[in-house]
Amino acid sequence: MNYCSHCGSKRLISKIPEGDQLNRIICEDCNFIHYKNPKIIAGCLPIWEDKVLLCKRAIEPHSGLWTLPAGFMENNETLEQAAIRETWEEAQARVESLQLYTIISLPHISQVYIIFRCQLSDLNYAPGIESTQVELFKQDEIPWDTIAFKVIHHSLTHYFQDRLVDNFPVHTGQLTQNH
Amino acid sequence: MNYCSHCGSKRLISKIPEGDQLNRIICEDCNFIHYKNPKIIAGCLPIWEDKVLLCKRAIEPHSGLWTLPAGFMENNETLEQAAIRETWEEAQARVESLQLYTIISLPHISQVYIIFRCQLSDLNYAPGIESTQVELFKQDEIPWDTIAFKVIHHSLTHYFQDRLVDNFPVHTGQLTQNH
Repeated sequence: MNYCSHCGSKRLISKIPEGDQLNRIICEDCNFIHYKNPKIIAGCLPIWEDKVLLCKRAIEPHSGLWTLPAGFMENNETLEQAAIRETWEEAQARVESLQLYTIISLPHISQVYIIFRCQLSDLNYAPGIESTQVELFKQDEIPWDTIAFKVIHHSLTHYFQDRLVDNFPVHTGQLTQNH
Repeated sequence: MNYCSHCGSKRLISKIPEGDQLNRIICEDCNFIHYKNPKIIAGCLPIWEDKVLLCKRAIEPHSGLWTLPAGFMENNETLEQAAIRETWEEAQARVESLQLYTIISLPHISQVYIIFRCQLSDLNYAPGIESTQVELFKQDEIPWDTIAFKVIHHSLTHYFQDRLVDNFPVHTGQLTQNH
């Protein structure tokens, strides 16, 4: 942020507003306080029989590596709508029966990942604009060494462990790095 | 947003960027795309024996009404840290044994509420700067008609229902209004 988005001034300073506890970017001309908050990444772990759907990333970061379909939640949608939309955009896949599964805070990059287990509705999937390849993988076929993000590795690991006992509790936690 | 925070231009337009699906605010001078995303409100449902801790709001919206301690998650913290911090700020209360409990999307105001069940660590609570009163309530003492937000009413209702069977699954859902 170089200019105040409210009044256009360049006189932005970082200080703790009265009654607050944290430094904020404040405009010295119009006194507008510019808050910054974490972003939600919503996505799906789509299941078909004993397989999981993964996307090969066409974009950075980690172009060429595999991930679950997930992306930034947009204004005016629900978590479930965001996860379904991202799955459509990245894997052209329709999903159903969403169940909240993993919620992982990534404080170093101010993100919260929220992943839903779900059923793939049919086999009509295909790479969306952010993917070069979309494939179903059995557990022993998962490309564990080329998964794009730790948080996705984490969700997949939980899934295959939980599947052994057919019990899928919601997993919460944090990761201090994602690569 | 009246000015581009990147270059200071007033030439902001709303259009769908190439490869995107939604309208964004874009600067016609520097082409910066200004994304807006939902915010997370993290909070606690603090329990002491058969009672729940509520705060009477000192600030708008809904000054004078009761709520659970909760507020905007900050950058560089985890969900749990945010819920603990908000509980300290609003109720000067220490809590422990946090368990994820309700996750409610409020798409009309682009918020996601994430509430943890937890134990109050001791009885040294007091109103923080955003509260005028902090009290423990048994179920039949809860001021149901003066709860500030629907999403809080919802979480409290789930809690007392779940307590009957001593089983507290994570509840997900959405509300299309909050008052």
